[in-house]
Amino acid sequence: MNDLRKDPVSGRWVIIAKEQMLKKEDVVEYPKPLETDSKSCPFCAGHENMTPPEIWRWANPDGSWSVRVVPNKFPVLRVEGNLDRRGEGVFDHVTGIGAHEIIVETPNHDYLSLQEDGEQMFRILTAYKIRLEDLKNDTRLRYGLIFKNFGGEAGAHLPHPHTQLIAMPVIPKHVKEELVNCKMYYELKERCLICDILLEELERDIRIVGETEQYVAWSPYAARFPFETWIIPKNHSACFSLENDKSLRDLGILFNRILQALRRVLESPPYNYILHTRPFAFSPRHKQTTIDDDFHWHIEIIPRLMKIAGFEWGSGFYINPTSPEEAAHVLREALTG
Amino acid sequence: MNDLRKDPVSGRWVIIAKEQMLKKEDVVEYPKPLETDSKSCPFCAGHENMTPPEIWRWANPDGSWSVRVVPNKFPVLRVEGNLDRRGEGVFDHVTGIGAHEIIVETPNHDYLSLQEDGEQMFRILTAYKIRLEDLKNDTRLRYGLIFKNFGGEAGAHLPHPHTQLIAMPVIPKHVKEELVNCKMYYELKERCLICDILLEELERDIRIVGETEQYVAWSPYAARFPFETWIIPKNHSACFSLENDKSLRDLGILFNRILQALRRVLESPPYNYILHTRPFAFSPRHKQTTIDDDFHWHIEIIPRLMKIAGFEWGSGFYINPTSPEEAAHVLREALTG
Repeated sequence: MNDLRKDPVSGRWVIIAKEQMLKKEDVVEYPKPLETDSKSCPFCAGHENMTPPEIWRWANPDGSWSVRVVPNKFPVLRVEGNLDRRGEGVFDHVTGIGAHEIIVETPNHDYLSLQEDGEQMFRILTAYKIRLEDLKNDTRLRYGLIFKNFGGEAGAHLPHPHTQLIAMPVIPKHVKEELVNCKMYYELKERCLICDILLEELERDIRIVGETEQYVAWSPYAARFPFETWIIPKNHSACFSLENDKSLRDLGILFNRILQALRRVLESPPYNYILHTRPFAFSPRHKQTTIDDDFHWHIEIIPRLMKIAGFEWGSGFYINPTSPEEAAHVLREALTG
Repeated sequence: MNDLRKDPVSGRWVIIAKEQMLKKEDVVEYPKPLETDSKSCPFCAGHENMTPPEIWRWANPDGSWSVRVVPNKFPVLRVEGNLDRRGEGVFDHVTGIGAHEIIVETPNHDYLSLQEDGEQMFRILTAYKIRLEDLKNDTRLRYGLIFKNFGGEAGAHLPHPHTQLIAMPVIPKHVKEELVNCKMYYELKERCLICDILLEELERDIRIVGETEQYVAWSPYAARFPFETWIIPKNHSACFSLENDKSLRDLGILFNRILQALRRVLESPPYNYILHTRPFAFSPRHKQTTIDDDFHWHIEIIPRLMKIAGFEWGSGFYINPTSPEEAAHVLREALTG
């Protein structure tokens, strides 16, 4: 019989459809990432003048850069203007204030270059941290969302490895739901929900994909998608951007290994990842909460293998034909093998 | 400047990105629905023995049928077995009890045949109603979800027009969120949230797509997707399956006109629609609420024109490059033209 499982963090139900075969029609056909022309790529080294003025760079002693942050040329939110929150009758409206930045992850056009340098992921994570810490100072903003689209099927427009950061004057719905669920759990138990999941996952050891000194990766109990993988700090921490260098270096090692394992097992799939960290601290709502005790930041990695039907959109209810235990087993083998 | 809008029913934020052009890479390439071979189609008239035993039919005097309901051959939930709700440590688990049915919408293979007969949509809606009323009697079940996937890009496996019904022992997340938001609003105002939106939309008349005596269709204020369209009963009603024949006939007329307008404007796009009605009445949680006063059933139609990136998945936050006012204008012209 199939399983119905509830994700305690988000509150969504998933059918783990062990009886279901992953149907060929449901699988996204994805080409291998193309070796596109780097001549016209605005993110390649030497093309710095093709982007809007640089915000930050990881500068190397020889004058070159390893990571570069630039404004998105076509931002969905802009820094200029006044923040205006108002009702329109029964509706709520906020002006489109915010920031939309691109973190260029490497001067090299080819994504494979990323995994060769063990330190590069640390530099990328440092860029995330520095930008979040800076944007936090804009008191109009409530949340900084870091996300990556890799491959056209996952929504990427340019093949050159990059991440996006959208800082916005509202807290996105899924993050808010996680905050609320974690808070409710904390009020009931006086323990962090994700810390409790962590202890349980480590003890059961059937969904763990890999770990380092400070981080662990698992297939979540109620994974929405085949091979969905989360990375979580072992020590309780609500805020990604408060992690120190040692921690980010350790995270970089595990993150890189997980992405490589996914590439190996699924043959360079399109994927998204997203960082769920706490909202910027001055948000009035969060001043009143014990947010540092009750939230636990994490990264969600979602390979984009399946088409999504109306059922999922309309219900927030997912059908996943690959059990997380099976996915974890396969990824673990790929990690160690 | 772009707009940030909050949908009061679901609570999600959307960027209405008027400044953004709908980029070519973001648009799903969809072929026109194929005139596939009907010889091997299990849903065509004359092939009744290719499906599991029939559950219900709209029988015609001449012995033929107009609509037919059959069990899904590959159900994600099954009727047989015991309902077992239990914890697994910090997690929640329910056995995969439920029903998964197919409503075959016409004996004809070609979807275009549907719009020729004005009464056919009424018969299909009647099938939805009868099945929901019947499944309600299974006290293990809490919700019946009616949804349609049209076109391969929207998740359909078979081209023959059909709808799916999944009845499940839990309430799906998005429905629960709508119930909670509507209830909160009701407690504050002692009015139905969706009734209030209805009054406002009719008064402003900038997002209305069309209406009949008893129904209205609009582009929602915070539409997630280009040309997303909702159909709502004008009179307050929490439960779709309590509508009478006159009402469903009226709904059928508007529903058909909207689907035809979408086809005309968007050249037969893949789409999903989903019915959001109240949960089955015996759910313990809902016995205690004033659910009949505070919820208002509706249908959400989502043309599948855009690829969905990690941002949307991870945040529950959407970027819609087509303003609902613009979409409503275009659809209204197509309806009346």
